[in-house]
Amino acid sequence: MKIDVNSDMGEGFGVWQVCDDAALMQVVSSANVACGFHAGDPSIMTRMVRLAKAHGVGIGAHPGLPDRQGFGRRELPFSADELCQQVIYQLGALRAIACAESTRVTHLSFHAAMGNIINRDATVALQVMQAIARIDPDLIIFAQPDTIIERAAQSIGLPTLTLFLADRAYDAKGQLVPRGKPGAVITTESAVRSRVRQFLLEGTVTTIEGDLLPIRARSILIHSDTPGSVELAAIVRNEIEANGGSVCPASEVLLG
Amino acid sequence: MKIDVNSDMGEGFGVWQVCDDAALMQVVSSANVACGFHAGDPSIMTRMVRLAKAHGVGIGAHPGLPDRQGFGRRELPFSADELCQQVIYQLGALRAIACAESTRVTHLSFHAAMGNIINRDATVALQVMQAIARIDPDLIIFAQPDTIIERAAQSIGLPTLTLFLADRAYDAKGQLVPRGKPGAVITTESAVRSRVRQFLLEGTVTTIEGDLLPIRARSILIHSDTPGSVELAAIVRNEIEANGGSVCPASEVLLG
Amino acid sequence: MKIDVNSDMGEGFGVWQVCDDAALMQVVSSANVACGFHAGDPSIMTRMVRLAKAHGVGIGAHPGLPDRQGFGRRELPFSADELCQQVIYQLGALRAIACAESTRVTHLSFHAAMGNIINRDATVALQVMQAIARIDPDLIIFAQPDTIIERAAQSIGLPTLTLFLADRAYDAKGQLVPRGKPGAVITTESAVRSRVRQFLLEGTVTTIEGDLLPIRARSILIHSDTPGSVELAAIVRNEIEANGGSVCPASEVLLG
Amino acid sequence: MKIDVNSDMGEGFGVWQVCDDAALMQVVSSANVACGFHAGDPSIMTRMVRLAKAHGVGIGAHPGLPDRQGFGRRELPFSADELCQQVIYQLGALRAIACAESTRVTHLSFHAAMGNIINRDATVALQVMQAIARIDPDLIIFAQPDTIIERAAQSIGLPTLTLFLADRAYDAKGQLVPRGKPGAVITTESAVRSRVRQFLLEGTVTTIEGDLLPIRARSILIHSDTPGSVELAAIVRNEIEANGGSVCPASEVLLG
Repeated sequence: MKIDVNSDMGEGFGVWQVCDDAALMQVVSSANVACGFHAGDPSIMTRMVRLAKAHGVGIGAHPGLPDRQGFGRRELPFSADELCQQVIYQLGALRAIACAESTRVTHLSFHAAMGNIINRDATVALQVMQAIARIDPDLIIFAQPDTIIERAAQSIGLPTLTLFLADRAYDAKGQLVPRGKPGAVITTESAVRSRVRQFLLEGTVTTIEGDLLPIRARSILIHSDTPGSVELAAIVRNEIEANGGSVCPASEVLLG
Repeated sequence: MKIDVNSDMGEGFGVWQVCDDAALMQVVSSANVACGFHAGDPSIMTRMVRLAKAHGVGIGAHPGLPDRQGFGRRELPFSADELCQQVIYQLGALRAIACAESTRVTHLSFHAAMGNIINRDATVALQVMQAIARIDPDLIIFAQPDTIIERAAQSIGLPTLTLFLADRAYDAKGQLVPRGKPGAVITTESAVRSRVRQFLLEGTVTTIEGDLLPIRARSILIHSDTPGSVELAAIVRNEIEANGGSVCPASEVLLG
Repeated sequence: MKIDVNSDMGEGFGVWQVCDDAALMQVVSSANVACGFHAGDPSIMTRMVRLAKAHGVGIGAHPGLPDRQGFGRRELPFSADELCQQVIYQLGALRAIACAESTRVTHLSFHAAMGNIINRDATVALQVMQAIARIDPDLIIFAQPDTIIERAAQSIGLPTLTLFLADRAYDAKGQLVPRGKPGAVITTESAVRSRVRQFLLEGTVTTIEGDLLPIRARSILIHSDTPGSVELAAIVRNEIEANGGSVCPASEVLLG
Repeated sequence: MKIDVNSDMGEGFGVWQVCDDAALMQVVSSANVACGFHAGDPSIMTRMVRLAKAHGVGIGAHPGLPDRQGFGRRELPFSADELCQQVIYQLGALRAIACAESTRVTHLSFHAAMGNIINRDATVALQVMQAIARIDPDLIIFAQPDTIIERAAQSIGLPTLTLFLADRAYDAKGQLVPRGKPGAVITTESAVRSRVRQFLLEGTVTTIEGDLLPIRARSILIHSDTPGSVELAAIVRNEIEANGGSVCPASEVLLG
């Protein structure tokens, strides 16, 4: 069983950074690289691409809204055209940086508010996917299962990889419990371990209401900005390997 | 005789703009499109690409330093690595936007301080050209004749197109007279006309000291941020055509 | 009869600008100076303060949301606390610049989305006014008549000055017709002239529906970013003086 | 013996931060608050002012160059006029925020490149001090002893407070050993402790060459961006108190 472990990377700006990217890069199999809008700049992006290449980590674009002050978490009013242009700009920038380093971008994962906006409207999502496909029809789109983004990508033949969030509670509908609510974030190591194990062995998660919910996912997302993210990623990786799984980049997971 | 007329385009930000891009695009044959660092954003870039495509204008990247406040005119301290990364990022972003619009980027012209820094050190210039060639070995590099940038591009086989500035005075060494000095900028229509005519018919410019200087150039640069730039570009174009020349994008000029 | 003519000033950024501030400053009596968030920077602010002082023009703070890309026109999600802090920061910055130039800030006019947000909620408006009053209890607040902002300012004793927009259509309720709608912006010189004359002589405006509406206003706002704003301001000023009025800064108008 | 312990505070931006400001505020006696240019924003500044007020910590402006990407460490080309305007703008902004919180700004400490530029030219330094004195003639200027900044402030009667850097090596001339050089930064707790003790008891520092150098200082600066800064500040504070000293804000230290 092949499974991907991915994390958002390079989300710094100037002197500021979110996590220890170099340490995290040694544990994950896919890196979603911030592309200069909500975070990141050409130098940070190049460093991420070099680290990912050195560790055999899959390189993904992690485009966000143009909003450093709000870290791309504020829903700013952009049209579908503008969203497409922002995605294409950032994807193109990272592709060129990867090319200059003799490697390539294999996947894309939307950041925060940009993802939320695109995931809310099937027409917008389709337009964005069509724009992406014009740049690279083989780009793997990361998505929560059964979302507008997943369906839009699939409808035009873009490959997709579905995500499981080991450190976030799900409700009965398979939605993430919003961060503000009690129990929304799983913080203890043992709880994360057992959720990963259950996901790997049974393909389910226990919802916040206590029921079993099937989870169709091929990649586990680690939030790089939570304290202890490097340790958490290592736990997830170890748990996968201890249960006979193999941690691989998205492109290898999709090969089956 | 084929000759190119080029101008910097899309150098706005938010509500602000530098010139009437739509009008200028009807007169030039090559557009150097700001790529989001000193000016421009994905929406403006897309608009420029669409306008250029509609008018048969060649699309070029116009990368600058990451400095909107200073419009890319301040020489900020960046390493050769950082300059390469900035150029590649911006070039990649515009290439993707052009690709999404079913067209392509054919040339590159450095903006202001970025160009000055690269043009000062042969090692830096070579490193930048090598990075560019990894992205597109056929990209035409715009350069003043006999400069470090021209030689660096030629040394690794990147095509180059040399520039003549019809509205700027040259000194005996073929250098531009700095903007601050008296007579540095040619402001009257008749003077610009006669300089273009002399350049076209005799291949020379009269220096600020009054001597004839041969000018090896295949493209005339119009500064979009000078008042009356649209009219100036039209004058230049008319003068070329009146003297039997043909105004073509850089890629056609190089075909001979 | 004393009346003020005010305009938003110094709304540039780096090389970019919105209008000919120096020319406009010779015609208006109150300048609403952008304070570095939606536009402006310390140098532009200083230049505005010097120009205003030289021409006897009243100096006002024109705080906006921190959003240069959107020119402060996008309604970003800020709490009442954050809005207060943004207003106080910008007001304090301009007050210090004025103080360094041996003059002072006498009024405040909110910019675009910041004004709209504050004007939507009486609790927010009150909190903002209380914060302002802690900095300067004599600061004159510019407001449309009968708005939440006017009432909040008055409720805690801040002086207010009400605005008439000579180049914008009003509806039967005294609201401005939104910019997108037909007839919302008055563009002909003669129409603006006659509206100013009617306002001065009769204290009324003819609504877009054709009815007479009383207008309680002591200052006429000229939009600096409309083409021909300098000429428009001159027309308004001339019309006031031709009808026996006197153009004065806000502080003098309030003296009666 | 009264001595001040100061640190740069609130040097975050959006989601990013440099140190645990709340913890550090419990240990220092003076807070140099970033004012929105190299770091900080109105909300962070307000939080710093509230924390400082709650802990009896002196509030200082910490103005920097307008350069978030470079964290105010790049020497950008600004004129003396522009530097004055930037200092005044930031000082005014913080003064207003302090006023809105019913407290006040008592000192000023220049950040990084802004300090270096001002400290290089006596004419520039004098012009900046004169501008500051127009805003507040009692503002305490933090300075290294025997520097251009200290002399400029003293020459026009602004109070000054001199700094000792317990975690940085000095050379024979009393200059800081540049960060890049071996031994420039003191990293062990015991070494910092002994340097503070020596400074307190004997008023000297042992230079990197091994000689004793008298240090005339009334405040110890803790770099908030070094790992362990909170612990370092606590060590310094304990060492002062263990040696019979009293840790007080700048304004109390100057009272004697």
